[in-house]
Order: sequence, then structure tokens, then C-alpha cells
Amino acid sequence: MSLIFLKFSSILILLIFPNFVNSLWPLPQNWSNGTSLLRVYPTFTVKYDPKFLNSYTDQLIESAKNRLQIFLKKEKHFSPNVKFQIPEDVDDSILTLSSINIEITDNLKKDQDDSEEEYIDWTYNKEMSEGIPLGTDESYELIIPDKKDDNEKELIAYLKAPTVYGILHGLTTFSQLLYYNRNYEELFLPFAPHNIKDFPKFMHRGLLLDTSRNFYPIKEILKTLDVMSWNKMNVFHWHIVDSTSWPVVSEKYPELSEKGAYDPKKMIYTKRDIRIVDEYARARGIRVIPEFDMPGHTYAIAASMPEIMTCTDMYPDWDKYSAEPPSGQLNPAIPETYTFLNELVPEIASYFTDKFYHTGGDEVNMNCWETLVQQGDVTIESLLDKFVTNLYTILKNEGKIPMTWQEMITEHNIELPKDTVVQVWKNHTMVKKVVEKGYRVVTGSGDYWYLDCGHGGWLGNNVEGKSWCDPYKTWQMIYSYNPIKELSDEEAKFVIGGEVLLWSEQSDPTNYEQQLWPRSSAAAEVLWSGPEDVDGNRRVPDNDALKRLNDWRFRMVERGINAEPLQPLWCVLTGRCDKAVTTEEINKNA
Amino acid sequence: MSLIFLKFSSILILLIFPNFVNSLWPLPQNWSNGTSLLRVYPTFTVKYDPKFLNSYTDQLIESAKNRLQIFLKKEKHFSPNVKFQIPEDVDDSILTLSSINIEITDNLKKDQDDSEEEYIDWTYNKEMSEGIPLGTDESYELIIPDKKDDNEKELIAYLKAPTVYGILHGLTTFSQLLYYNRNYEELFLPFAPHNIKDFPKFMHRGLLLDTSRNFYPIKEILKTLDVMSWNKMNVFHWHIVDSTSWPVVSEKYPELSEKGAYDPKKMIYTKRDIRIVDEYARARGIRVIPEFDMPGHTYAIAASMPEIMTCTDMYPDWDKYSAEPPSGQLNPAIPETYTFLNELVPEIASYFTDKFYHTGGDEVNMNCWETLVQQGDVTIESLLDKFVTNLYTILKNEGKIPMTWQEMITEHNIELPKDTVVQVWKNHTMVKKVVEKGYRVVTGSGDYWYLDCGHGGWLGNNVEGKSWCDPYKTWQMIYSYNPIKELSDEEAKFVIGGEVLLWSEQSDPTNYEQQLWPRSSAAAEVLWSGPEDVDGNRRVPDNDALKRLNDWRFRMVERGINAEPLQPLWCVLTGRCDKAVTTEEINKNA
Repeated sequence: MSLIFLKFSSILILLIFPNFVNSLWPLPQNWSNGTSLLRVYPTFTVKYDPKFLNSYTDQLIESAKNRLQIFLKKEKHFSPNVKFQIPEDVDDSILTLSSINIEITDNLKKDQDDSEEEYIDWTYNKEMSEGIPLGTDESYELIIPDKKDDNEKELIAYLKAPTVYGILHGLTTFSQLLYYNRNYEELFLPFAPHNIKDFPKFMHRGLLLDTSRNFYPIKEILKTLDVMSWNKMNVFHWHIVDSTSWPVVSEKYPELSEKGAYDPKKMIYTKRDIRIVDEYARARGIRVIPEFDMPGHTYAIAASMPEIMTCTDMYPDWDKYSAEPPSGQLNPAIPETYTFLNELVPEIASYFTDKFYHTGGDEVNMNCWETLVQQGDVTIESLLDKFVTNLYTILKNEGKIPMTWQEMITEHNIELPKDTVVQVWKNHTMVKKVVEKGYRVVTGSGDYWYLDCGHGGWLGNNVEGKSWCDPYKTWQMIYSYNPIKELSDEEAKFVIGGEVLLWSEQSDPTNYEQQLWPRSSAAAEVLWSGPEDVDGNRRVPDNDALKRLNDWRFRMVERGINAEPLQPLWCVLTGRCDKAVTTEEINKNA
Repeated sequence: MSLIFLKFSSILILLIFPNFVNSLWPLPQNWSNGTSLLRVYPTFTVKYDPKFLNSYTDQLIESAKNRLQIFLKKEKHFSPNVKFQIPEDVDDSILTLSSINIEITDNLKKDQDDSEEEYIDWTYNKEMSEGIPLGTDESYELIIPDKKDDNEKELIAYLKAPTVYGILHGLTTFSQLLYYNRNYEELFLPFAPHNIKDFPKFMHRGLLLDTSRNFYPIKEILKTLDVMSWNKMNVFHWHIVDSTSWPVVSEKYPELSEKGAYDPKKMIYTKRDIRIVDEYARARGIRVIPEFDMPGHTYAIAASMPEIMTCTDMYPDWDKYSAEPPSGQLNPAIPETYTFLNELVPEIASYFTDKFYHTGGDEVNMNCWETLVQQGDVTIESLLDKFVTNLYTILKNEGKIPMTWQEMITEHNIELPKDTVVQVWKNHTMVKKVVEKGYRVVTGSGDYWYLDCGHGGWLGNNVEGKSWCDPYKTWQMIYSYNPIKELSDEEAKFVIGGEVLLWSEQSDPTNYEQQLWPRSSAAAEVLWSGPEDVDGNRRVPDNDALKRLNDWRFRMVERGINAEPLQPLWCVLTGRCDKAVTTEEINKNA
């Protein structure tokens, strides 16, 4: 009944505002709106009454409030295609929204019998060290009225959520409802009242950035976290090391970065850098999952510890030993490797607060280990099994949940702990295979969600310039990916989400923003709003989506992000550049 | 004999410096070098003795000197792959290059019998108003010794050229020989002595930028001109207006931009803006060729002058009337159109000093004009002929040489003045067709040199996201294009050069730098150095080219240009990422 009403009212709105463009990205699950215009001054305030004993949450709210205040002063988004009229008697006829009331509805349960002060310390330290709890409820409800309550002097918006993370998303949505007007030099909030009930379809909405093949300074990562939060993405998958470089500074093995980073002073991530990233992300509702890819993709370790490596930098026929140059894998047959893991992994894992730790595990090359099994009765698979068992045991002791690339399941048939999360990258059909073996899946396969593809091959002497992952994944292709397609409802429950991926063979700070945005936004909407709307209709990259994405892209540009344009400005302004009704179709319809 | 010696000496150098990477881009036609290392201080001076009476040339030299002085202070390029040793006793063992002597060898001939003062004014005004003469000799000779002349106290480089434009290229080459060392905080010049005799293969080495579909502020255009000059490109083809917007401010028809620009105050090019671009370009040896595309691609005119337009903004079946939305063509059947051309074209043509004026002429749609010929005995082709004849007559009277897109020759069979330069864009096979009809050609076809391709379709409701000009043109593809392939030597003479093209449907200031660079550099080398080396060997995008291009790309980045990376930094540093000798090939060779 309410759905029918919603539909009906939105038809009404479309009739009244033929140019009305929905402007939120990702689209909320439930949203009704009206036709009133409100003003919002920079003096707009956020009201939050800390009701329960959790100072860490309060700290997050406080920093979100500060961000919103800064935003209210800085936001200058003048939409090219969201249109509304400002009446001439604006001072008399338009209400001003004065504040937003924030309420966290689920009080934390006091699960131990301590004094109040002890409890504060306990929850604070617990949250500080454990990061964002898995399965956190990210839903929120945002109400922006266009009439004052009888008992209120001012017009007030309401934002409610069970957790602080829902509140963060709600504030993000609120910010997307505001438009700057250059003539009035003010923010306006059109199409009120707004009633939004929103929640994510998938719990894992990620973006992978590879900081090994080319290096990214911390400030670029922080900027990316900002944009992710605006898109309600909540997982930063940090592919932090690889064969090409090891930028992470370890206190136990300082030579790893001294010899394995591109620049041991400038192109590194210290423990402090990582903590900054982790904290910055958490304050925006984003989990940081580090990936220390092993046992393959580890050549960079050879610079300091050649003795635990095999098949290092086999040149020029590296492709017998590796998917990419330079070749090199950890040696699983000698105890020194396990000493290394036992020392290193707990240290680097402890730099990150998230429960998940990505073990890598992709593209393990069997030729590389062939010489290890020539004498004796071990097999290569048993060596891999030994390596994995050791690594996963360390992680279990550290309280971490392992993630792995798909090959461990789809190619090696290794028995992993059932809480392992398996990431599919080769192609979508592998999702079902992994689910059938009972593992949770994060997807984002090379045929849909690889953001680096399409700029050709990068190997020298590749005179044709082609690449396996051609072509470029357009926003349309990304948007059309359904992470749970061809799965039963029961199987779909195993898919906890997906990630877009930027491998950095041909990316670095000069061009990554353009590659990430707005295409990652397309994936963000699939993961938040879901591949289908509330009526079960498949979302498609049609005109409605494009208009909304155009508006969102221009807003991101206005906020300082070099997101690529999708159309000539004329098309954005007019919306009159959709695919033509072809002559054939005209004749057919005649 | 000298060639054999050159070859032999470079083998010697390679033996001594196994990591030696040629570092110039585009590669000079003739270049020999040695093994000495020189220092270059910021106090390095440029000596130029104005020998003849041409103060405009002197002015260009003066500004080039200033640029070099600034460059010597700012250049911080620390090459990732050009390696040379700095000896510990650097102060004692290394010579310092103190200055460069510039000489223009071809004195202008005094072709009238005036007083000296009058002659100065005459040449100055002539050059000022006429722009860079067509067919200017751009060759230069650069000598950087590693030993002092007997009669000199200091080590001096020599740069000689017949024209100031050759001098500019020589200074560009000189700047590419310098490397900054972070430890010494100084510029070094390795591999001296250098003897370079250089000249371009093609006279027309262009880059097209479309500033209509999306707008570019003047400062972006000036930046692009800088980078073009570093790449020895000498034609900026300014596709300045199109159907989507008319940013050019005309004094005679101010409404064209008032109503046809995206923003009549901010997104416009005034006469002053254009003069700044023209001057800035000329000071860097670059000609600016404006394109006012007509009679198609003119919808933007309809905003102010609907009465001279046909089939404007036919929606939604625009594709019957136009290659792209919005549709709209000038009406060739009414006198008002010719009044407009007679007034407008001389005005806007006069804003540019170059001899060439690009008339557009592509994608004229015959359906659009169908209604014009239903009564009467005219044909659409005769209307087009009438339009072209009128337009070209105006240009002739203004002393301009017309350029046109290929369709006028390959599709309409219109008789054009024989000095018309025809630009081929559809595909390379058309070059021969045009040459056979006796016209000069500029090439840069969509199958090789379109820089905008590969990011998918931009029309709304294009749910598959594909585009006619997919895939992305990799640097390898661009580098492998031979503008004169399949032509006889006689035919090849008609090909005066080529252009890379950035159409801006999906480009604007957020992403155009990454799309232009370093791929335009690949074309720049084809056009300057030629598709074959001096021995007639075809240039290919092999490891040698890639290493040099990597070095050049990093230098451009260091100079503030967001040129895309081509490889992981590890590959750039080591040069060990060439395509593997595959197992198959190993077996074959065994």
C-alpha cells in the first residue's frame, strides 16, 4: 500500500516537475519527496545528545559534525541538470531549515558489571582496537519536513540510526540534497519534504587500490577514503605490497622496505601512516582490509631476504614462473620462511584494526616450486597446503579472519577455515563455484569491475599494445553487473558484497582519480541500493541513472575530485542526448 | 661512411653503459654522443647576437632565453632509467658547460629598398600579422663539446638554425639532455659530446582539441601549447565551436556566444583570449589553425539565429539528421545565410594569424536539407556546392588557405581550390583517395590517432556502453601508424603531416591531460622523426622506444603535466618487463 502510494506520488512529482532529476547517489531504498524549497544557512546546526556511555561513538559524531559544518561553508555544487525555481520573494516565502537532530536508537548493551567509568574505558578501548564491528547495522532514517511541528519554533530535520555508521550515511545523504545557488550565494534544499528509509543491500562495498606497482602518497589515499564515504562504500581493500615494491615499514624486518620500497625514505608507509589511514577510514565508516599477498607476488621480499625466495626475477622467460614480471615466490619448504611469517605477520596485522586480513594467494605458480619437490615425496600442492595452514594459524592466533583470492578454492582445492572469505576475480561464474563449497564470497571480477583495464598492454615489446583485460569497463558495464546473478536466494546469502579494483600497472597519482571516479560510483550503487529496486526491477544504466550520475559527478568535481565527464555538457544540461529512436525502430512502430 | 661510424660508436657506448637509454623525444634525425659528464649551473647563459634587422625574431629569441633560464632553475627531472655515474671528485673532474651560442644562419633577404628603420617596422609588422610562414625551415644543429676550444676559456655549446623556429626546437632538445641530481641539487649533462643535426619529417605536426563539447579555460590551452612545444609539435588545431556550444565572442554577432556558449560570461573565448593563445603559440613555434565547422555541426548557432538553420534539435530521432545530437545545419538555400557568412567569417578569421583556416565540412547530413529541394530544380549537392563556393571565396578574399575534412572530396566530389588541405579522419585508406585527386593531406584517422576513443559510449540509454570508435588507442597503436603507408614516393609528398585528435564528448579539464600525454608524444615522434629511421628501418613500439618514452613521460610529470604512467615503476627502473620469450618460442629456438 505504501509502495503504491510512493509510486503514485512520484508520478505526480514528475508531472509537476518534468525536469526533476533524482539527485541522490547511491539511490536510497525508500524515498518520498515533495515540491517545497528550503534554505539552509551555514549557521545550520547538528544537534546530538550523547545518551549512552560510549565516548568513541561520540567522538565519531563530533568529527562528522565538524565535517558537515565545513561542508556547509564550502559546498558550491550548482547542478547542471537538477532544476528548481527560486521565487522572487525568497525571503518571505521560503522556510529555512535550522538544524538536524541526530539520534542513535540502539543503545549499546552493558554486558559486564563494572562501574560507569570503567565501562566507558572498556567500550572505548574495545572499539578503538577492534575497528568497525562486522555486520554493523548501517541503516538510517532521514526526515526533512517542509512544515514546522506545532511545538517547535524552527524547522528541524531528523536523522535516526541504530549505529553511528548509519548516522554517517544519513549525513552523507543530507549533503547530497543541498544545492548551491550562485546568484543567492546560498545553499537550497529542493523537493522537500523528504522521507528516506535507507539501508545497504550488501555489507561489503569495497574498493581495491594497489599501492605496490606504483606508489600513492598517504594524502591520495585519504582523499580516496573521502570520496568512498560520499558513495557509501565501506571497505578499503589495500593491496599494499606486491612483487614490484614493498612500501610497508616493518619494525622487525626494516630491510623489507629499506631494500624493497621504490624509495626507502619517501615511498613508504610507516606504522604511523597506516594508523592515520585506518583512523581516517573508521571515522567515515570505512573498514581498511590490508592485503599482504603471499606466497606469490612476493619478489620484493627477495631484495632483503633472498634465502627464503624461489625463482626470483627469472629473465627473460619470467612467464614460466609468474603471471607478471618479476617472478618470485616464498619458499614453503624451508623453516626460515615460517620463522619469517611468525615474526612478520602478527606485527603487520596489528597495524590494522579490522577483523579481516587478506592473505592474497592468487596466481601461485607451480613451475616456480618444481625444483623443491624433485627430491623427496612432497608434492607442490602439499607444500602450498603447508604454507596456507601455517599462515592461517598465525592469523587465527591474532584474532583475524582470513580473506583469500579465489584460486585457493577454484584451483587448488585446499580446505580453508569455513569463516574464510573468498574473493572472486577471474570471472563471475566462479562465484557459484565458491558458494557451492560453502564459503562467503566477495566478488568484482575482471570482466566487469577492473578499473585498470582498457588502456592496453604495458609489457615492453608488446608492439600490438593489447592486454588480456581489454576492453575498458564503461560505467554502463560496471552498473550492469549483478553480484548475485545466476544464484538461488540461498546461494546469494553467501555473497557478502563486492569490490571495484584498481591495479596500478598503468595507474598512479597522475591518473587514478579519473580511473576511479565516477565509475566506482556505479558499483557503489549496485552494492548499496542493490542490483534491483524495491519492486524487483533490474537497475539498468538508462537515462534516469545517467542523469543522476551526471549530477553526482559534477558534485564530486565541485568538491575537488577529477571525476571523468560522461557526456558533453550540452547533454547534461538538456538530457536530450539519449540513443536515437532509429529509423528502423520508427518504421517498426509505425 | 659516417653512418657506419655512428652505428659503431653507439655500439661502443652500449658496451660501456649497458643501461644507457637514449633520452630524447622525439628522436633527432642524426645524433652522435660520447661518455663525458658535464655540469650545468643555473648561471648558464644563452648568447645571441642579433645580426640582422628583424626585431620580431629577436623578441622570440628573448622570450625563449627567458624560458630556458626559468627552466634551468626549476627542472628537477631525476630520471628513473637514464643512468650515469657522478664521480666522487666531481669538483675537480667534471667540466661545466657555461653557455650556449645561438646563431640564425639564414639572414632574411631585404626585398625592398627602404631605409633601415622602415625595414624593421615592415618585417616586424609583416611577421606579426602573418604568423609563422608556411614551409618554415625548422632544422637545427646542436653541438655540445666535452673539450674546450683552444681559443675559449669556457666550455660552450653551439646551436645553429636557419630560422628562429629551428632555434626553439634546438633549445627544447638541449633541455631534454639535462638531468637533475637530488644529492648534488644540480643539473648534469651526461653522454657528451653531443652532435645533433635534426629536422622534421613532416611539416604539419598537429594536435586537435575540441573546446565545444566541453569547455577548456585558456590556461589549459596554454599549458597544452607548452607540452606540444616540448614534443616539437607545431600545429594547434582548435576545433573551437560545434553544435553543442559556441564559445567564441564575435563583435558582429555577440548573440552567438551570449546564447550559444555554455556560460556567456565564463565559458567563452574573447578576441583577446584568442590573441593570447595565438601569440603564446607562435612564441613556441606553433601555428594555431581555427576550425569553424560548417555547414554541419552548427546547432549552437540556432540559439541566436534560428532563421538560418535547418533540422534543429530533432528529437528523439536526431540520428536521421545528424551524426550526433543535437542536429542542425546552416540553410544553404537562403540569402540570409550568406549575409551571415560574409559578415562573420572575415571577423573571426582575422582573430588568427595563421594562413590556414579550417572550414570543417564533415558529416553534412543530406536528410536535413531534403525539404529545401522538394520544390524547384536544385539538388542537395548543388546546395552544398553553392555553400562551399561562397565560403571559400570569402576565405580567398581574406588571404586564407582553406582546410576541410575529407568528405568534401571522398563523398561529395566537390571541386575545391587546389591549394585546399584535406584532413582525413575516417580511416587511412582515404589518404590515397584524396592524394589521387591532387590535394594535400593532413591525416590522423579514427582507427589510429583518436585520443578520445575507448571509454565507451556517451549517449543516454546506451546500456551496453559501446562506441563506434572503441577500442582505446594505445601508445603502441599510435606509434605504429605510418602516415604515408601504401603510398608511392610521389604520392607521399602530398601528405604534409598529421594530427592526433581529442574530441571532447568525454573529456574536459578533469581528464584531458591524461588522455593527451604521453600518447600524443608517440605521434609527435612519428611526425618529427618519421615512421622510419635514417637507415630506412620502420620504427616500432619496442623496448628502446618504451624506455625513452618512460624517461620522457617522467620528465613531463616532473614539469607538472599529468601524463599517464605506462608501466609499474619497477619496470621503468629495471627495464626488465619486456614481453616474455614464451615457452613455445624457447622450444622453437632450442
